[in-house]
Amino acid sequence: MRYDGEPLHTVLRSASKEVVIGHDQRFCLIGERINPTGRRLFQEQLRAGDLSAVERDVRAQVEGGADVLDINMGVPLTDEPALLDQAIRLVQSLTDLPVCIDSSVVEALEAGLAAYEGKALVNSVTAEDERLAAILPLVKQHGAAVIALPNDEDEIPMDADKRLALTGKIITVATEEYGIPRADLVIDPLAMPIGADTATSLVTFETMRRIRDEYGVNMSCGASNTSFGMPDRHTLGAAWLPMAMSAGLTSAIMDVRTPEIVAAVKAADVFLNHDDWGMAWIAAHRAKAAAPA
Amino acid sequence: MRYDGEPLHTVLRSASKEVVIGHDQRFCLIGERINPTGRRLFQEQLRAGDLSAVERDVRAQVEGGADVLDINMGVPLTDEPALLDQAIRLVQSLTDLPVCIDSSVVEALEAGLAAYEGKALVNSVTAEDERLAAILPLVKQHGAAVIALPNDEDEIPMDADKRLALTGKIITVATEEYGIPRADLVIDPLAMPIGADTATSLVTFETMRRIRDEYGVNMSCGASNTSFGMPDRHTLGAAWLPMAMSAGLTSAIMDVRTPEIVAAVKAADVFLNHDDWGMAWIAAHRAKAAAPA
Repeated sequence: MRYDGEPLHTVLRSASKEVVIGHDQRFCLIGERINPTGRRLFQEQLRAGDLSAVERDVRAQVEGGADVLDINMGVPLTDEPALLDQAIRLVQSLTDLPVCIDSSVVEALEAGLAAYEGKALVNSVTAEDERLAAILPLVKQHGAAVIALPNDEDEIPMDADKRLALTGKIITVATEEYGIPRADLVIDPLAMPIGADTATSLVTFETMRRIRDEYGVNMSCGASNTSFGMPDRHTLGAAWLPMAMSAGLTSAIMDVRTPEIVAAVKAADVFLNHDDWGMAWIAAHRAKAAAPA
Repeated sequence: MRYDGEPLHTVLRSASKEVVIGHDQRFCLIGERINPTGRRLFQEQLRAGDLSAVERDVRAQVEGGADVLDINMGVPLTDEPALLDQAIRLVQSLTDLPVCIDSSVVEALEAGLAAYEGKALVNSVTAEDERLAAILPLVKQHGAAVIALPNDEDEIPMDADKRLALTGKIITVATEEYGIPRADLVIDPLAMPIGADTATSLVTFETMRRIRDEYGVNMSCGASNTSFGMPDRHTLGAAWLPMAMSAGLTSAIMDVRTPEIVAAVKAADVFLNHDDWGMAWIAAHRAKAAAPA
C-alpha cells in the first residue's frame, strides 16, 4: 500500500492565527512546558488556584519559537476539567498561538474544547475501542484535530508492524465511523527513551517512514522522551529531531525553550527543502546578529 | 535489487591501529583539516617547505575525535607527489590514526601510497573510464580502499538514478576487472551546497538510502560542503550529519575540530543503536564532567 494523494494538511486555528502541519510544510513545534508532570511547585500552585506559572511558560515558549502550545493540567486531587477550562482561557488571553488540549480524562478534554475558540489539536486518543468511542465524537463535534497513539489494551507495541496495523485501524474508524477527515488525524509513532532500549529509536524511525509512505497522515510525538535518563539531553534532542524529520515526523511536542534544539529543527527544515532558499534560516541569523547583546 | 549480504567492513590500518567502517559500526570521522584549499597562509608555508601547520592540525583533530585523517597537499606550482610523501611520513610520526590520501593527481596518490605503512583510503576515483584505469590498479597493488564518486565526463548528476547507475558501474569494474573487494569501495553520494539548490540534500539522502539498500557498500562524503555560503554553518552541519547517517552514510570527511558537530554524530550513533546502551555517550559525558575547567 502506498499513499499517493496530495500532502494532507492538518490546519489548527486560534481566533486569529492559523498553523498548518504537513509533509510539505516546515516542522510544527508544539511547546511541551505547560504541564505539571514532574513539576512539584507548579502542581502545588495549581492546587492553590495559582496559574501565574502558565503566564511565564507562555512567554518563554512564544519567545522560543513555538507554533502551538500544549496545555496539560493533570494534577491529582484537583478538578481537572475546571482547571483546564481556566488554563485555556488564560492562554488564549496571552497569545494567538493555537493550542493542543492534553488530557487522559474525557471530561477535561470536553471542558477544554468548550472553552477554546478555534480549531484545537486534541491530545490524545488510543486505538482502544472504548477510547475511540469516547473521544472521537468530541473531536468531530468540535471540528478539532486529534493525536492518536497506535497502542491498544496490550502493552505498547515494540514492533513497527503492530503500530502500522493499529494506525490503519484508527484511520478506518475515525474516517468511516465518525466522518473525521484523514487530514485531522495526527498519528503518534511512539518515541520511547533510548536509555531503556538502544534499538527503540530505529523502530520509531521505521514506523514513521512507513506511516508516511503507506498512510500519508501527519505525525507528532513527545520528543523529549527519547533522551530521558541520559546525560546531555539537549545534544541528544538536537540530533534526534532531524533524524525523525528525515523519517517523516511533521511535528513534535517538545522543548522549545532550548535554542540548540529549536535551531536543529530549523536547520533540518532547510535540508528537507521546507525553507525556500534558506530564507527563514538566513533571516533568523540576521535578526540574531542585529539584536543587542 | 536489494543487497542482502552481511554488512561490508572497510578496514583501514596504520602501523598499529585499525579502524572499521560499516553500516553496523559507529560513524567514522575523517578529519578534513590537512588541506591547503582556501588556506592562503598554509599554501605559502607548504611552498616554502614548512609543514609545521600539519603538526597543529594533527593535534587538534586527534583531540577533536578524528578516527582517520585526510591528507591533501594540492598546492599549485609545487611538486605535489614529493609534498604528499613528506606529509604522510610526518603524520605517521605524529599519530597512529589511519590516513586518507587525497589528490586528483595520480602520481601524488602513487607517492602517498608508497610512503604509507598500512592500509590507506584513497581519495578519490570517479566513474570515468580513464580515471578508473589509472587509479584502481594502484589501489589493488597497495591493498588500499578507495572513495569513488559516481560522476563521469558529464556534469555532476543531479538525480539519484544516474548516481545509482554510475555506482553500479564502479562496483562492477572495480570488483570484476581489478579484483578489488566490494568492502574496499567507499562510494561518495555527492553532497552539494544547500545554498545553491535547496532540494540538493533530498537527492543526496535518497542516493544514500538506495546505495545502502541496493549495493550495501560503505559511503563517505565531504560533509562541510553542504553548509557552504550559509550562516551558522556549525548548526547546519550538526543537523545534516544525523540526517545523512539515518539515510546510510557511514563516514564523512568533516570538521572534527568543532565539538558541536562531533557531538551530533555521537548522539546519532546512540539512536542508530551503534553505541550499546549509550555507554560511549555516557563515558564521554563523565570524562567531560571530570576534566578540569
